[in-house]
Amino acid sequence: MEKNSATLLETIKVLLAEKKYKTLRDILTTLNPYDIAVIFEELMDEKTALLFRMLPKELAAETFVEMDEDTQEMLIHGFSDSELKEIVDELYLDDAVDIIEEMPANVVRRILKQADPVTRKTINELLNYPEDSAGSIMTTEYVTLRPEMTVEEAIKRIRRTGIDKETIYTCYVTDSNRQLIGIISIKTLLLAKDDEETVSELMETNVLSVNTLDDQEFVAHTFNNYNFLALPVVDKENRLVGIVTIDDAMDVMEEETTEDIQKMAAITPNDKPYMKLGVFELFKSRIPWLFLLMISATFTGMIITSFEDALASMVVLSSFFPMLMDTGGNSGSQASVTVIRALSLEEVEFKDIFKVIWKEIRVSVLCGVTLATANFAKIMLVDKMLLGNNSITIPVAFVVCLTMVVTVFFAKIIGCSLPMVAKKLGFDPAVMASPFITTIVDAISLAVYFWFATVMLGL
Amino acid sequence: MEKNSATLLETIKVLLAEKKYKTLRDILTTLNPYDIAVIFEELMDEKTALLFRMLPKELAAETFVEMDEDTQEMLIHGFSDSELKEIVDELYLDDAVDIIEEMPANVVRRILKQADPVTRKTINELLNYPEDSAGSIMTTEYVTLRPEMTVEEAIKRIRRTGIDKETIYTCYVTDSNRQLIGIISIKTLLLAKDDEETVSELMETNVLSVNTLDDQEFVAHTFNNYNFLALPVVDKENRLVGIVTIDDAMDVMEEETTEDIQKMAAITPNDKPYMKLGVFELFKSRIPWLFLLMISATFTGMIITSFEDALASMVVLSSFFPMLMDTGGNSGSQASVTVIRALSLEEVEFKDIFKVIWKEIRVSVLCGVTLATANFAKIMLVDKMLLGNNSITIPVAFVVCLTMVVTVFFAKIIGCSLPMVAKKLGFDPAVMASPFITTIVDAISLAVYFWFATVMLGL
Repeated sequence: MEKNSATLLETIKVLLAEKKYKTLRDILTTLNPYDIAVIFEELMDEKTALLFRMLPKELAAETFVEMDEDTQEMLIHGFSDSELKEIVDELYLDDAVDIIEEMPANVVRRILKQADPVTRKTINELLNYPEDSAGSIMTTEYVTLRPEMTVEEAIKRIRRTGIDKETIYTCYVTDSNRQLIGIISIKTLLLAKDDEETVSELMETNVLSVNTLDDQEFVAHTFNNYNFLALPVVDKENRLVGIVTIDDAMDVMEEETTEDIQKMAAITPNDKPYMKLGVFELFKSRIPWLFLLMISATFTGMIITSFEDALASMVVLSSFFPMLMDTGGNSGSQASVTVIRALSLEEVEFKDIFKVIWKEIRVSVLCGVTLATANFAKIMLVDKMLLGNNSITIPVAFVVCLTMVVTVFFAKIIGCSLPMVAKKLGFDPAVMASPFITTIVDAISLAVYFWFATVMLGL
Repeated sequence: MEKNSATLLETIKVLLAEKKYKTLRDILTTLNPYDIAVIFEELMDEKTALLFRMLPKELAAETFVEMDEDTQEMLIHGFSDSELKEIVDELYLDDAVDIIEEMPANVVRRILKQADPVTRKTINELLNYPEDSAGSIMTTEYVTLRPEMTVEEAIKRIRRTGIDKETIYTCYVTDSNRQLIGIISIKTLLLAKDDEETVSELMETNVLSVNTLDDQEFVAHTFNNYNFLALPVVDKENRLVGIVTIDDAMDVMEEETTEDIQKMAAITPNDKPYMKLGVFELFKSRIPWLFLLMISATFTGMIITSFEDALASMVVLSSFFPMLMDTGGNSGSQASVTVIRALSLEEVEFKDIFKVIWKEIRVSVLCGVTLATANFAKIMLVDKMLLGNNSITIPVAFVVCLTMVVTVFFAKIIGCSLPMVAKKLGFDPAVMASPFITTIVDAISLAVYFWFATVMLGL
């Protein structure tokens, strides 16, 4: 894919330079909207507008949706009012809303001015739904049927009205109050044995729907669990107001996963692609957490300071800091990341917390003892005998390895339980990932280390 | 959702105890396959088989697919041969293959024995595709049309043969050699203005297809970029052999993301849900990385050992270890995780490496200087003046802060470039995430720290 579009880009540049516009038009009309969008983004100059005008109306609208917002904005600035109107008319309403949400105010005004009154009203309604709600990602262009229609009438209606609908594959059956009473797939209609059967006889009445204010992540999960192609969205009175299609649900899934991953790495989420992010934007999304975690880490430093005298008499102890801290951090983040993902896939709920902790306790003992044993052997054989470090004694090795076991133990327990508690309290569990856990586990690990050292080495 | 199924479960338990089977059947037939599967998994006893037998054939098959493998296996053991045959006949082939892949050999033999010879042959062929390939997730049940068919003939054919197909929404046009020459959606057919138009006039000839041996992750990305509902799979001779539907692509996306997240947290990937994983399985997926990273961390310890004398004369230096190491680790993992995600979403390619490094250099200078300035103020005001730590001097604070700038600088550069280099060399970039980067950055950070301390504090 990538390879192909790269070579094609070169061809197009040459053809553009040679002004072979007919050939260019022929090439572009054979391509998918996504591939054209990639080419336009790479060109990113006044010639994009030239090429864009060559596209047939429908392909132009589909390509417009696939482009990034910078290219979209550049094109809109170059459009005449009538060109803009053509594109707006051709767009599906949910796509139009997505585009409008990313544009500066003056562009938004121009777009809305060109839309016909009904479209403008609907766009304004859709813009009013809270960000990340089902309402904000739904489309209002779907096929409705009445329960009393026969299969033949229903298929006729679909063939007559389907052209502007985002999907015709699932049709929605409503009563006279616009209440959703059933769904029926076009597969059911087409495969029905008798054309005189009615929609109400064939429709599925146990309909899963989401509310306009439901979180878009919940909507995406519902798609994943039930294998739907579209999901109806109803208002508080159970009236059908829109549908979410599976392509939008997939986008939400990807977006939410990226957000989770960013949070787990202590980054304030940002939905722009990396290459489009400015240096200052990256700085702003990273510095708050670095700052917070730097301050937290000074508490660990204070533990060291308070044992400064003990440490001065046995400096060798400090050479094990990195190993103890890193192992603790890694053990904790293994547990926290596993649990965060399981929470987000709804494999684990808060009521499982004791089962989870009990499981992690057993895993931590297995891991801790294995690591400590290997470590004891390594300290005695490599550090002491091979490298001849005379400050290392059996009691020192013993203190290090015992600390290791205790550190892994606490790391796993804290790692698995903090995200679950965070979710229960209404916070985002992803924020409780590695960096946060590492800071806490560091402090515990060093405190335990010094305590063992004081008691067992008599410092 | 979750709430509802919990209460329903109680109702069902009570009804089971009271042996009200008719009521139970009525309840079950109103539910979605996924919801029934959740209830069966929760029950997990001999009564599940009783309830399962109440389901109408089609619903039974759909529910069977949604259940976890333990429940599936338990049910199969209870089935008579004819019951097993009924289920196998009703399953879509790709679902049957998914189930067979998870079953022990004796169960596989029983299933294959019950399948009719044609089905058995196809299942065996599908089982032969490498794991994670397009071939392994495709289905062979799709609608094919001939180019010379009229719209009317095509619709008739779909209505006649569609019943067993996994999707009828995209139809595949093949020539007499089974070569794929076009696709046509049922929407296009139904909305065609003239019933006498031919498929070849209406079909899309610029068809994106994948090869049987393509990686399933590539397949999932293609869905995401192009908003398809199904994607054709061809063999080396470009003959159509199957299709992948969007629900399977969504599962792949979720599975691959979980794998990436696990690798980033230094866990060997495992696709079982957390609550189904045994303690020893968790141990096995975690211990290798913990062990490797523990060994690597001892190199950092060796750096400390080699500066032991310098450290003995100025123990206060060690109290800044945690802050320097944690800030370095966090800075590095911010960069690495961002780049790993961008690579996996195909937002960044290897050819961008110098752009990426240059961007990270600028971000690292901004972050490093900000953190160092804040840290200098904090050391002088809090540690020295407020807490009265007399070992802290302006040169010491200066050494710490300068180390901070250099550490953040290297952390960001290593963090962003290692995953890109790993991908270029054919390794998985996700493995180059936080734990790995942390270990390297720790060592650099302490080496720089001691070097500055030796030079500037004259140790």
